[in-house]
Amino acid sequence: MELVAGSVCKAVFTRNAFCAAPVIVAREHLGNTSPEYLLVNTGNANAGTGDEGVRDAQQCCSELAELAGCSATAVLPFSTGVIGEPLPVDRIRSGLPAAMQSLAEDGWESAAMGILTTDTRPKGASRRIEIDGQAITVTGIAKGSGMIRPDMATMLAFIATDARVGADSLQSCLSAAVGKSFNRITVDGDTSTNDACVLVATGKTTLPEINTGAAHFGMFSAAVTDVCVELAQAIVRDGEGATRFVTVAVEGGLDPDECLHVAYTIAHSPLVKTALFAGDPNWGRILAAVGRAGIEDLNLQAVEIYLDAICIVRDGGRAADYTEAAGQQVMEQPELTIRVVLGRGDYSEQVWTCDLSYDYVRINAEYRT
Amino acid sequence: MELVAGSVCKAVFTRNAFCAAPVIVAREHLGNTSPEYLLVNTGNANAGTGDEGVRDAQQCCSELAELAGCSATAVLPFSTGVIGEPLPVDRIRSGLPAAMQSLAEDGWESAAMGILTTDTRPKGASRRIEIDGQAITVTGIAKGSGMIRPDMATMLAFIATDARVGADSLQSCLSAAVGKSFNRITVDGDTSTNDACVLVATGKTTLPEINTGAAHFGMFSAAVTDVCVELAQAIVRDGEGATRFVTVAVEGGLDPDECLHVAYTIAHSPLVKTALFAGDPNWGRILAAVGRAGIEDLNLQAVEIYLDAICIVRDGGRAADYTEAAGQQVMEQPELTIRVVLGRGDYSEQVWTCDLSYDYVRINAEYRT
Repeated sequence: MELVAGSVCKAVFTRNAFCAAPVIVAREHLGNTSPEYLLVNTGNANAGTGDEGVRDAQQCCSELAELAGCSATAVLPFSTGVIGEPLPVDRIRSGLPAAMQSLAEDGWESAAMGILTTDTRPKGASRRIEIDGQAITVTGIAKGSGMIRPDMATMLAFIATDARVGADSLQSCLSAAVGKSFNRITVDGDTSTNDACVLVATGKTTLPEINTGAAHFGMFSAAVTDVCVELAQAIVRDGEGATRFVTVAVEGGLDPDECLHVAYTIAHSPLVKTALFAGDPNWGRILAAVGRAGIEDLNLQAVEIYLDAICIVRDGGRAADYTEAAGQQVMEQPELTIRVVLGRGDYSEQVWTCDLSYDYVRINAEYRT
Repeated sequence: MELVAGSVCKAVFTRNAFCAAPVIVAREHLGNTSPEYLLVNTGNANAGTGDEGVRDAQQCCSELAELAGCSATAVLPFSTGVIGEPLPVDRIRSGLPAAMQSLAEDGWESAAMGILTTDTRPKGASRRIEIDGQAITVTGIAKGSGMIRPDMATMLAFIATDARVGADSLQSCLSAAVGKSFNRITVDGDTSTNDACVLVATGKTTLPEINTGAAHFGMFSAAVTDVCVELAQAIVRDGEGATRFVTVAVEGGLDPDECLHVAYTIAHSPLVKTALFAGDPNWGRILAAVGRAGIEDLNLQAVEIYLDAICIVRDGGRAADYTEAAGQQVMEQPELTIRVVLGRGDYSEQVWTCDLSYDYVRINAEYRT
């Protein structure tokens, strides 16, 4: 991917301590120069590859820089695929000329296809807002399906806008958006070594810079967040083996952290996830997950649990008016919300997840064969 | 199960906040009287059943007490099965006379069979030690296969010894044993609402009390721990859908907590567990799990990861002498050890777990059908 001259580019990366070589190199290059190219390969994550992996990633940047006539540090590398195998630098080098030739301004869709691994479909999102009579567009693509529990960013996401935005404002806009989108999803609780999310502002509009504090920053920031949320949800919808899209909303917490902790405990529970796969309103598993989340001094009498609008738990046990038929009806839907009311404070959070199916096991047992 | 007169009985229970009604009642009865009977039912956990569940559990205790001619508080109730359904008190009542008639001193095996749910086989363990020329026996049974990540105790375990032990010493012996056994296993990370582990000392020997500080307390305590470890490992070996038994050992940590945290992050990773199911040495997933465990200031260069004796990660990447064939050979074994050396301290911990297979999903998707 080529960035329009004069673009401002910001990114967030995985917080996995064993972050991949391309993450190390991209982070370093981002600190040095204004990026001109994003180089993405799939099939090999170039992670767990030590110093050799870093040299390989730098080598790929140099090869592209030579073809493009830019400095190697103006190239940000991204990799996704198997961890622990040496990066096939020769194969990437030989593919570069063709990749350069196929660069196109309207290449979003083929780029979205090109970055997939176990994903079953491309993921894109776009929003258009109007500021002072002029249209501003925010468009992004993402990939990701397994090893999804982003911590600062998702697998790979690339977002661009034609707005003019200052570097600091762009970073704060990206961080806010990621916090409400890619950092609120989980397929399997496994945080990848390669997560990265990039936001580019090309500044092609004639509008003045939209910076923090400016009249339209809120509207612009909301558009970026919307695109990120749509992409993040698309990753969960295409989660490995996923048959159901589930929102886990936790309300009435003392602080955001305890809401998130309860939400992720539910979203990561293999027993909740297999019940979701079966479409079985086995809500006792949700209750058990809330109970084991380790919230201190939880007043069980105040806790309420809902499947969509159906109350299943109230007053410390099954709600008096709950019927299995009502629960069954919700669980059979392709999308549903598990809502937990903790009844002890004013904070709420939500995360998005999917079920755990035979196909998740098949995909990940067969991944390298 | 009937306890010999004069027995001392101690127990530890789940720390799930939504603990089941029988856990509430058993804990209360244990504080009041010396227990004479343990009443166990399967198929229904009597959890998430609110005040009605507590009354139902008390009712069952009263029914048994009437038959046996003891006080209701001398009965400890235990339940395991589906969460959230009302306890079928009538069915339990009608089964009590037959259960009373079949009580037998050598009834360990039929009791071990009787308490199973999704388990595929009974679990028992026994140790005999000699103190001052007299034999002391410690024998226990357990059940558990899914919803296994005990926190203070396992699903259900009942252990007895003919030693004479004071109440406080018995409790400290049990707590130490559970800490090294049932609190070191995980099948799916889900802590049950019904976990309980009971240790009974009948005092039938003529030996003096073996209390903390006594010459033989260490030996006795070790025997209890051995029985608990064997039972705990048996639960993992019979984990729902399990095809492999895996020890995750973490060494060189700054404290026990960070060792356990890394070990459980690996043991709960769906990606590591599916690779174990496939017998695939996809060690990048182990590395990614170590990396996402959130250990502060982890020096990646110092971390080493082994599959049994085979070093897979060293110097921040794949060990130079690692071969896929060597890794493959270890992964194909029915039992193996994942060993992580953090290289930053003197503490070590280990946990036992199993793989994640199609059958885990099948068993838990079909559980209530």
